[in-house]
Amino acid sequence: MGFNHFIKIHENDNVSITVNAISAGTVIMDDVVANENIPQGHKIALVDIAEGEAIIRYGVILGFAIQSIRKGDWINENMLQLPTPPSLDEMEFATNLVTDLPEPPVKTFMGYPHPNGGFAGTRNILGIITTVQCVTGVLNNAVKRIKQELLPLYPNVDDVVAINHAYGCGVAINAPEAAIPIRMMRNMVKHPNFGGETMVISLGCEKLTLEMLLDEQEILPENVLILQNVNGHDAIVAEMMSMADSKLKKLNERKRVELPLSDLCIGLQCGGSDAFSGVTANPAAGYAADMFVQAGATVMFSEVTEVRDGAHIIGERCVNEEVGRKLVSEMKWYDQYLEKGQVDRSANPTPGNKKGGLSNIVEKAMGSIAKSGTSPIVEVLSPGERPTKKGMIFAATPASDFVCGSCQLSSGVTLQVFMTGRGTPYGLAEAPVIKVCSRNNLKDMWGDLIDVNAGPIATGEATIQEIGTLLFHEMIEVSSGRKQCLAEKYELHNDFTIFNPAPIT
Amino acid sequence: MGFNHFIKIHENDNVSITVNAISAGTVIMDDVVANENIPQGHKIALVDIAEGEAIIRYGVILGFAIQSIRKGDWINENMLQLPTPPSLDEMEFATNLVTDLPEPPVKTFMGYPHPNGGFAGTRNILGIITTVQCVTGVLNNAVKRIKQELLPLYPNVDDVVAINHAYGCGVAINAPEAAIPIRMMRNMVKHPNFGGETMVISLGCEKLTLEMLLDEQEILPENVLILQNVNGHDAIVAEMMSMADSKLKKLNERKRVELPLSDLCIGLQCGGSDAFSGVTANPAAGYAADMFVQAGATVMFSEVTEVRDGAHIIGERCVNEEVGRKLVSEMKWYDQYLEKGQVDRSANPTPGNKKGGLSNIVEKAMGSIAKSGTSPIVEVLSPGERPTKKGMIFAATPASDFVCGSCQLSSGVTLQVFMTGRGTPYGLAEAPVIKVCSRNNLKDMWGDLIDVNAGPIATGEATIQEIGTLLFHEMIEVSSGRKQCLAEKYELHNDFTIFNPAPIT
Ligand SMILES: [Ca+2]
Ligand SMILES: [Ca+2]
Ligand SMILES: [Ca+2]
Ligand SMILES: [Ca+2]
Ligand SMILES: [Ca+2]
Repeated sequence: MGFNHFIKIHENDNVSITVNAISAGTVIMDDVVANENIPQGHKIALVDIAEGEAIIRYGVILGFAIQSIRKGDWINENMLQLPTPPSLDEMEFATNLVTDLPEPPVKTFMGYPHPNGGFAGTRNILGIITTVQCVTGVLNNAVKRIKQELLPLYPNVDDVVAINHAYGCGVAINAPEAAIPIRMMRNMVKHPNFGGETMVISLGCEKLTLEMLLDEQEILPENVLILQNVNGHDAIVAEMMSMADSKLKKLNERKRVELPLSDLCIGLQCGGSDAFSGVTANPAAGYAADMFVQAGATVMFSEVTEVRDGAHIIGERCVNEEVGRKLVSEMKWYDQYLEKGQVDRSANPTPGNKKGGLSNIVEKAMGSIAKSGTSPIVEVLSPGERPTKKGMIFAATPASDFVCGSCQLSSGVTLQVFMTGRGTPYGLAEAPVIKVCSRNNLKDMWGDLIDVNAGPIATGEATIQEIGTLLFHEMIEVSSGRKQCLAEKYELHNDFTIFNPAPIT
Repeated sequence: MGFNHFIKIHENDNVSITVNAISAGTVIMDDVVANENIPQGHKIALVDIAEGEAIIRYGVILGFAIQSIRKGDWINENMLQLPTPPSLDEMEFATNLVTDLPEPPVKTFMGYPHPNGGFAGTRNILGIITTVQCVTGVLNNAVKRIKQELLPLYPNVDDVVAINHAYGCGVAINAPEAAIPIRMMRNMVKHPNFGGETMVISLGCEKLTLEMLLDEQEILPENVLILQNVNGHDAIVAEMMSMADSKLKKLNERKRVELPLSDLCIGLQCGGSDAFSGVTANPAAGYAADMFVQAGATVMFSEVTEVRDGAHIIGERCVNEEVGRKLVSEMKWYDQYLEKGQVDRSANPTPGNKKGGLSNIVEKAMGSIAKSGTSPIVEVLSPGERPTKKGMIFAATPASDFVCGSCQLSSGVTLQVFMTGRGTPYGLAEAPVIKVCSRNNLKDMWGDLIDVNAGPIATGEATIQEIGTLLFHEMIEVSSGRKQCLAEKYELHNDFTIFNPAPIT
């Protein structure tokens, strides 16, 4: 395979991106010569583009030229005017349902059967849920001691994790949008990696009551500790330890068994994206995702603001009108949410995205959607909702890495695959996170933070299928507990971050 | 002093509250007999109240009777209809400026002079600011090692604290309301307890750029580490440790000296309030606050939704029209913020408040305002703003304990006094928190979590002045580092929680 210097994706594209930074005078292809120095991953005009004409990449219009652009010019983010977003009222559904998905080389993994049915666990964790941040201080003291004194007694248990968060009190708990944070919390209690053991720490006077969090029959002294009923700090820590001890005893009985991949629930997201993300890491993840879907697994992608400009592309992949309607309603909700805050979808791209060559949200969207492969979309979820179908799912969440990660956890993912172009040490305490980078120099630089390098796709040294298959195997190894990903090795844990669109009071 | 069983505050009140739970048949006063069992801290009708008639406590209308109430009946939260809130357009300012404040028994304390002028420090802490949550995992690994390996070498430094938070990326950074979180972050860098040493950890591609956080001349390699420029996890941890080492060296030179109380900045808030909060703990804190103000200190109270129903009472205490106008604008902003979320001020009270006898937000407001004593209000701050005046200040923040605490930290408080009725183990990593309880049985139960008991005021065993003076001395001892409060002893640290009314993207 040859070595690429420039990547043109679609035959209609009038730009290509640079695989490495180039100097003025470099010959791009045939009769195109760079008019100036161009940074890595940035766009170069392949033809003259007149003011107002479309700039095309991925075969779609990224925007319209604000000034006239000469063949060989660097096209940066200040040279495009954003097109109007696809209309949510004129969508077509189920017109692009791909059925020839790649065959998975493996059909099972070693996982923890979930006691209540549904998804399997990939880790065996004592998850301690808090109803409100007030309890954080005492709980952290107890967790330190639980990890030191109790966890070593239960060798089959991987970790003890306190789900501290900023929700629970001082919030408008009766606001319509409070449904989102409450659902996130409810579903976290039942995360597959927590093995059906419920340990909830409540203060006693908070707005997020036990009745909102648990089913009535679960509200038992063995599952719930209410601090205002216990005699002070030392007594609270003692109670927490005794509760943890009996939960750890039960968790220690869990055993990995061979399970079909249809028991797996996987989340995909990207963060710190660059222009390579959409041609290397994300499509490779999409290829792996297609294999998991073909094996019957549940795979979700998210990040509403980031895929909004490709809504029509997602809509065509929705299996039916009902799924499509849910997609439209989630996207409309988000449009209105941004509007209330006096911003729009252009608020998404970061300085890092732009430095990485992503000129605007349209270009970012095309790359972001690539991670979902080609599978039909069987269901659309509101933030933190649990799937009812198996297959590829669009889980509507913010694009914020930690908020998306937390929403996907609430939706039940037990493995997350995270694609990055600029690089992030992101990780979760509740599930392993495999990090995939989009370019070789990030892997060279961050060897101990990046699990899989998709950079060779950009240089032409590997295909999307090859890296996708490599990633597939890595996902099986990590899910089966035969391998730790680097975020686990270094215990890189981002905080559980609730999506609360309702007011703080 | 006698022992109270029932507390009637104002001569016009037609209710009193029970100091302890009472049974049906108990004689309240003269000719009033309880018609039913009444929980501790709840209201009892002292006269017959017809349907639609006002229920009065603190001399103000808490609400209107939904049904007719007989003398001796228990009045619970379902029996009142909320009055309309005080109009923000017809406020009177500067009509109640009290000048005879109680004299402070002490006029100095032992504090750390702040290198940039302004407020003094009460603790000597290496505060490590993050621009974005992405860096949390690696930073926490570094902090663990810094505390174990470096901190013991610098005996004059109290602690190393990472300011992790959920802001920085995946947020609408250009939204009008983003001014609040950005200001909070900017001001935290300069917290007096951090001694003017700047240590900022950035990822490199986030939306909250270094330029938004720091002044241009502070953006130096010695103050800022950008992870995307460092070669992976282990190298990042090593760089963080070397940076921390040079900062700790400088902090270790800080020495406590005798300073006037006018160098102190104190924050007041309450949480988990009950019907006693407004007659014991809060007025005692208000008395102590008046003494600090008399000594020239800066003292702030907050919690907009909670004091909204007493806006007119705060307005009368504003020193002039300009301060009053800022009060109105902050309160209007909050009214609109709640309205956008389809809720109103009635969203504030918690189930715990109600269980504790607080029927609604009017009753809670009267108790909440009591913590500010009687001093004239010299300034009103937007959330996270720094004061420009000394004296009593209204810092407009949410009432949420951790959000209010974080906003007050950004405003520069180096000591917080926290009043509670129901009990909370709340604490902050960045400044000591003295906890004051409103009733004896909470102190009995939570002896190792409550620093000061204001309960004897309810039973008549102590006066507001006595407990207020006791609290004043406790505040001096803790500020001077001669005493640790219980939240410090147990390292009870609530997370720094940014107030971000703008959308997540
Ligand atoms: Ca993304
Ligand atoms: Ca993301
Ligand atoms: Ca309060
Ligand atoms: Ca509060
Ligand atoms: Ca935390």
